[in-house]
Amino acid sequence: MHHLLWWRMANKDSTLGIQYDKLEDTNAWYTEVITKSGLIEYTDVSGCYILRPKAQYIWDTIRNYMDKKLRARGVRNASFPLFIPEHLLMKEKEHVEGFSPEVAWVTHAGNSKLAERLAVRPTSETIMYPAYAKWIRSYNDLPLKLNQWCSVVRWEFKHPMPFLRSREFHWQEGHTAFATQEEAKAEATDILLNVYKKTYEELLAIPSLAGYKSEKEKFAGAVRTLSLEMFLPIGKAIQGCTTHYLGQNFSKPFNIIFLDKDQKKKHPHQNSWGFSTRSIGIMVMMHSDSRGLVLPPKVAEHKVIIIPIFTKSNRDEILKYALSIKKKLSKFNPILDAREQYSVGWKLNEAELNGVPIRIEVGKRELADKSVTLVRRDTLEKQSVSIRRLERRVKDELQAMHQNLFKRAEQFLESSIVEETKELKKIVAYVKAKRVVKTVYDGARETDEIIKEKTGAKTLVIPFKEKLKQGLRCPFSGNPAKHVVYIARSL
Amino acid sequence: MHHLLWWRMANKDSTLGIQYDKLEDTNAWYTEVITKSGLIEYTDVSGCYILRPKAQYIWDTIRNYMDKKLRARGVRNASFPLFIPEHLLMKEKEHVEGFSPEVAWVTHAGNSKLAERLAVRPTSETIMYPAYAKWIRSYNDLPLKLNQWCSVVRWEFKHPMPFLRSREFHWQEGHTAFATQEEAKAEATDILLNVYKKTYEELLAIPSLAGYKSEKEKFAGAVRTLSLEMFLPIGKAIQGCTTHYLGQNFSKPFNIIFLDKDQKKKHPHQNSWGFSTRSIGIMVMMHSDSRGLVLPPKVAEHKVIIIPIFTKSNRDEILKYALSIKKKLSKFNPILDAREQYSVGWKLNEAELNGVPIRIEVGKRELADKSVTLVRRDTLEKQSVSIRRLERRVKDELQAMHQNLFKRAEQFLESSIVEETKELKKIVAYVKAKRVVKTVYDGARETDEIIKEKTGAKTLVIPFKEKLKQGLRCPFSGNPAKHVVYIARSL
Repeated sequence: MHHLLWWRMANKDSTLGIQYDKLEDTNAWYTEVITKSGLIEYTDVSGCYILRPKAQYIWDTIRNYMDKKLRARGVRNASFPLFIPEHLLMKEKEHVEGFSPEVAWVTHAGNSKLAERLAVRPTSETIMYPAYAKWIRSYNDLPLKLNQWCSVVRWEFKHPMPFLRSREFHWQEGHTAFATQEEAKAEATDILLNVYKKTYEELLAIPSLAGYKSEKEKFAGAVRTLSLEMFLPIGKAIQGCTTHYLGQNFSKPFNIIFLDKDQKKKHPHQNSWGFSTRSIGIMVMMHSDSRGLVLPPKVAEHKVIIIPIFTKSNRDEILKYALSIKKKLSKFNPILDAREQYSVGWKLNEAELNGVPIRIEVGKRELADKSVTLVRRDTLEKQSVSIRRLERRVKDELQAMHQNLFKRAEQFLESSIVEETKELKKIVAYVKAKRVVKTVYDGARETDEIIKEKTGAKTLVIPFKEKLKQGLRCPFSGNPAKHVVYIARSL
Repeated sequence: MHHLLWWRMANKDSTLGIQYDKLEDTNAWYTEVITKSGLIEYTDVSGCYILRPKAQYIWDTIRNYMDKKLRARGVRNASFPLFIPEHLLMKEKEHVEGFSPEVAWVTHAGNSKLAERLAVRPTSETIMYPAYAKWIRSYNDLPLKLNQWCSVVRWEFKHPMPFLRSREFHWQEGHTAFATQEEAKAEATDILLNVYKKTYEELLAIPSLAGYKSEKEKFAGAVRTLSLEMFLPIGKAIQGCTTHYLGQNFSKPFNIIFLDKDQKKKHPHQNSWGFSTRSIGIMVMMHSDSRGLVLPPKVAEHKVIIIPIFTKSNRDEILKYALSIKKKLSKFNPILDAREQYSVGWKLNEAELNGVPIRIEVGKRELADKSVTLVRRDTLEKQSVSIRRLERRVKDELQAMHQNLFKRAEQFLESSIVEETKELKKIVAYVKAKRVVKTVYDGARETDEIIKEKTGAKTLVIPFKEKLKQGLRCPFSGNPAKHVVYIARSL
């Protein structure tokens, strides 16, 4: 068995805790974790959720981190309207086909019927590019690189799951225009690997497979879609984010023209790329366990919780000691859980449910020793730490926790991949056994359908720079193989 | 003439420049400034605009500044859904009456008609407070202080003006719940004076009058609305932002209940407060002139522009010198305008149009002197500055420019106020002369109508802590006066 069953842990009797099993009833487990830990609240609008402060903190942290990286690439923020008039959405054929089944339409304002329906943006290409047509005159105006942080609406009719498949979600969307195809393509790869992959790794401790989406799975309107794919401990894959090389698919219908150095009028090559709050859902699915949320330290608002353990007789001195530790650790924004109406056991469980990276217990023994008991959320091992070394130790443990989460997920991903380029039977068996199969295929749209039908898997990505062995045939269609491809069941 | 005609300046012959007069054709002047300086682009959706990077930079700067102040007050960020089901919007009677004429309604998703119409949020009380009802159990859960940065939609049918009266606008909305009326009221004042007023003063260099709105002008659903009012150089007033004490107007219909220390079930007292991109429009109206935008230094993305002046023979050495100055001033994010297809005159005009706070010219003389010529956008005076002192001097001049903009606006405001509590005739004449009249009135809704009808002015605010002289009668209704009040024509 290659699975690392790190999400299986004891202690499911508390009413605070998680009642469902991550593997056996993933949806129920997930819903419990995100609601009980205070990430999400449901609303009366199906598929639309409240991001509570804890979730918003994660998103704000991602925003700050990514904004710096984008700015260093010459990307500037802007805001484009929420509403897209129907005639603009219709301008690019493939694009409108991709989105129109999921568009939320504004038809009335007050008591008046609007002359034209307005789409609530599902993505902003069609509202942004008419402006690009105004702003771009010559090669001097290129590259044009804008980004916005906003929410978008895709009224999917599949079963919604907060973060992972919600009708409104938050993201950033970058939209760029270049004089040449080469520059555009290079940016699509740069953003994917050096911004998005880094964000997943550095903040959320999540590894991924990078590559191109298949013809069938690419973005509606793109020439090529690049993607990061994650493999979850439940044995399913999920798309983490995408960048799209749009070619001239939008610059032509939207009449974006520039005068190049050679004095010729040309259509720029464009990209769009987005990273959304889905990343938070993937983070929960990746790291959390049967005790609740496990928060990678860098996105935890409160990195430490201090739980004092006292009796009536030593209450005051223990609380005073706990307070001094809170002060010492102030840079980690610690919580001191001094509530007296809850038992220590309850508080420990709640801290685990909430995913606070480091828990510090202080009682009689710790006071006498001038020490604390430190417990990391990922390992749950108890350590005694002298208060002299505490600040440094907390810093180190937070870093070690991040590393450990990442490594665990990476080992799981690596151990899940199996290569099989020939026998369909074996491929089917591997998919059934929840593996990621590295195989080959012909890249045709229809073949994606055959794969789905025969194996229950989806193509994830065609990895970058993979050498295809000569003479291989596509195990699904029998045609000559064109690409290496990862396939797996998807969430 | 009390007006300080600082917005009148020469140089209107350039095609780059502003064709209209701020006083004579304010709307056309305003539209020119915000479009030509690159703050705003129009779209196909009337009343919805693109915030270009320059405007977005201002808003991001406001966000960062304000977010810190709010966090220090225990406010945490969250995100609530964009869509509000009709039945929730209907729950508070006054509130729905206030907003329903301006609500944009989503009626369809894809090809399906929705079972219930969804309002695109005009403000979020009615979608947030059902969640508050779930989260609040006892006094331990109070105060609850959440904020979100988002956009809202109010489909006004009046003539739209970018920033000032747009159908979609960006803002932050804070929503808080307290155990007592006193705490809630204190917060409404604190946010107005210590967060909002400071933001206007410290970032946008804008003074304001603070106080309560009249019964007629208050927020739909509020017990009391507090506001900042600005007085523009065009002789009109405008509301800058508001905080609302909602009392129990929402906690009752939304069934928000907490168990207090005295073991009694109570409804919390609530506030909501918002600061929007309207502030950017007010900034433009306040400081800009016939040469274009004047950007207060703290919200300017590029605080300095360097314009090299060279001939064919000294091109290389002047550009090298300009580049060394760019490097020296890197912390001010300078632009080096080295374009050779434009004349120096064009570049100077463009820099003024764009509102760059400090312009630095370097030519032959400056190179020989190891100096630069420095021109501040607000004064347009030329100074020679040695490069040894340049960095420090730029810093000082930016600060001085901020002070000067603020002082100018403050002197204008103060010189515009005239006190008249008795004679209606005089009040009418003052209003006509574009003054702010400090007067008294009875506070009745109907009296606001009389004021509007007889003078053309609106009540701005009832100032905090103003002592009303005994025995005064309302000059509009003849009833006993109840409040000191500022009135003026409004934009």
